[in-house]
Amino acid sequence: MSLKEEALQMHQEKKGKLEVNAKVEVKNAQDLSLAYSPGVAEPCKAIYENPETVYDYTMKGNMVGVVTNGTAVLGLGNIGAAASLPVMEGKAILFKSFAGVDAFPIALDTTDVDKVVETVKLLSPTFGGINLEDIAAPQCFEIEERLKEALDIPVFHDDQHGTAIVTLAGLVNALKIVKKEMKDLKIVLNGAGAAGIAITKLLYSYGVTNMIMCDTKGAIYEGRPEGMNKVKADVASYTNVNKEAGSLGDVVKNADVFIGVSAAGALTKEMVASMSTDAIIFAMANPVPEISPADAQEAGARVVGTGRSDYPNQVNNVLAFPGIFRGALDVRATNINEEMKKAAVEAIANLITDTELNEEYVIPSPFDPRVAKAVAKAVAKAAVESNVARVKLVKANKAD
Amino acid sequence: MSLKEEALQMHQEKKGKLEVNAKVEVKNAQDLSLAYSPGVAEPCKAIYENPETVYDYTMKGNMVGVVTNGTAVLGLGNIGAAASLPVMEGKAILFKSFAGVDAFPIALDTTDVDKVVETVKLLSPTFGGINLEDIAAPQCFEIEERLKEALDIPVFHDDQHGTAIVTLAGLVNALKIVKKEMKDLKIVLNGAGAAGIAITKLLYSYGVTNMIMCDTKGAIYEGRPEGMNKVKADVASYTNVNKEAGSLGDVVKNADVFIGVSAAGALTKEMVASMSTDAIIFAMANPVPEISPADAQEAGARVVGTGRSDYPNQVNNVLAFPGIFRGALDVRATNINEEMKKAAVEAIANLITDTELNEEYVIPSPFDPRVAKAVAKAVAKAAVESNVARVKLVKANKAD
Repeated sequence: MSLKEEALQMHQEKKGKLEVNAKVEVKNAQDLSLAYSPGVAEPCKAIYENPETVYDYTMKGNMVGVVTNGTAVLGLGNIGAAASLPVMEGKAILFKSFAGVDAFPIALDTTDVDKVVETVKLLSPTFGGINLEDIAAPQCFEIEERLKEALDIPVFHDDQHGTAIVTLAGLVNALKIVKKEMKDLKIVLNGAGAAGIAITKLLYSYGVTNMIMCDTKGAIYEGRPEGMNKVKADVASYTNVNKEAGSLGDVVKNADVFIGVSAAGALTKEMVASMSTDAIIFAMANPVPEISPADAQEAGARVVGTGRSDYPNQVNNVLAFPGIFRGALDVRATNINEEMKKAAVEAIANLITDTELNEEYVIPSPFDPRVAKAVAKAVAKAAVESNVARVKLVKANKAD
Repeated sequence: MSLKEEALQMHQEKKGKLEVNAKVEVKNAQDLSLAYSPGVAEPCKAIYENPETVYDYTMKGNMVGVVTNGTAVLGLGNIGAAASLPVMEGKAILFKSFAGVDAFPIALDTTDVDKVVETVKLLSPTFGGINLEDIAAPQCFEIEERLKEALDIPVFHDDQHGTAIVTLAGLVNALKIVKKEMKDLKIVLNGAGAAGIAITKLLYSYGVTNMIMCDTKGAIYEGRPEGMNKVKADVASYTNVNKEAGSLGDVVKNADVFIGVSAAGALTKEMVASMSTDAIIFAMANPVPEISPADAQEAGARVVGTGRSDYPNQVNNVLAFPGIFRGALDVRATNINEEMKKAAVEAIANLITDTELNEEYVIPSPFDPRVAKAVAKAVAKAAVESNVARVKLVKANKAD
């Protein structure tokens, strides 16, 4: 049986991948009087009198809403809310399996930004955090921004920040091998979608000074006459300091790093050969990367990562989001801020010791059981230190 | 430790009563490729091409949204969305424990009818049914009506219909004891809230011809000069055929049945004594009934039910909603219609055989394991026969 057939069969046999279970039994009148009427009135009254105790008496503190509108699902595009459910259930089981976080899919039947924002605001009382998922750019930026502003729980668009965090962790380690520094790099990123924008922002906040983003029309620079929009204009305002124009092939010359969040085959061997010595390539198009690791290496690249599990250095979001939310929830954070993202980057990078580090091992395995724990601990600490934690003490958690 | 203290402690120790679990393991790259990328694209594509298959490949077909806005929680009133969560989690564990139905709380932070309706419509793709809970009257009527119209999944306001179904089941059995017929009864109902309205409607659809609803201003009749609204005017249009006016004490004279969904002590011994012989009393105010069973019996009542577990004949919604949704989900019903409600009434009533039946046993125990199974089977059959089932074959289910 092919993987496709097997996946269909598994989903059908199980009727989806998620279930909701009771943590307490209801076998008799005594159980019922504690878990339901009349005993349940007590936690209700306590929360009404002191709203913060909702974290003590309900599931909220361990519950993440996985919110989508199905407009940018995997490589499938805008397939709508219902058809996105298998992915959202999959995301939820990763939250649980990797970090003990309860997560529940909320698939919204609308492409209207205002409606997504309003709906998530209204249903937020149930959740301790919101993970935005597979929402198309540029709407995803506004949705995340407005929800972060409106809500007092963390809001995190994983397609942006999860990818950015893991990519940066890989880059941090790759630089140790090639002995270059972040501030000296020329980085070219291909793909102006949600992930590309977020990677670019995060790299700049981490000390990068010379980075060029390309879209299908080539390098983005301030004042480019065509194919610009508000988001790209913002990118142009702080990137491409030398205002390099031209195709990807033109601007990738002498680059130290190529980051691909674009499409199969976008990077040729000739382009890699034109890059600086010890070039670093993260070719993350899925399922077929911008260039195969073998081709990249033949053309002179030193470190190559992809999005695939069958090549070394897999950039997989599962290295980031479970531990990030675990850490945020453990201190009842009101936000996932830049400090927490950077803490996650370092926690992921530092799992690989200098003696272990090599060209084929700059990113930990997605199934390394230490990852979520390390990320959670670092993120919780960063939340407390940056004053977005409701509780100061980091509690024992399932990922510990 | 008191029940109150014990309930608080249990909720705090468990951090709520619900958890979301994975039905499949994600231990290695092969698991991940089936449950998540790239395998998950197959069910997504299948649903996109044939929307009905969302029932085959996702959790939707067994998942009920327990939707509230926290405006009428237990006896606590309008305590808001967050403070209602312990009740919604409790409801969800009853769904799971009694009928294997997955249920998830959606507590909406709004009292605006339009916003509740819009939000539930937008988030409905995730759910196979919507259970409205603890929403204040009269808003609950409009919310239910509009959602039933808008959605192709069952929408059921349990505070209305669950109570009505169990009350009617008890009445059906009580009539066997006193040997009276539905069409000949004079019934007085005290309390013009959501449950009272729903009981009245259901009884009329079941053959009742002479029923009087009372509110705090006494009997409701067509043309009453004060204290009317749209909902009460509708009730007045088909009840109280003789336009009896006056207090509860006035109109309850010669009544065969008293149904209380009002407040402690509303029915006196003198009122019971003024009723017809073999009077039937369902005094369901919680935690203190309209009259105690002992007082009612001393005053001449033959059959007495309450909402309490420590008296005989407990009218408890848990006898109805788990099996009703189990049956509706098993045939992927688009609605919970009158036929299905009546099927539930008869299934509950018929669990007690004529030889078992007596004044203290007209309603089964909430923990009778046969109840949910019998209700589910009857409701699924009624759904198929009344053409609201998407699939004709009643599948084996967890409650069987």
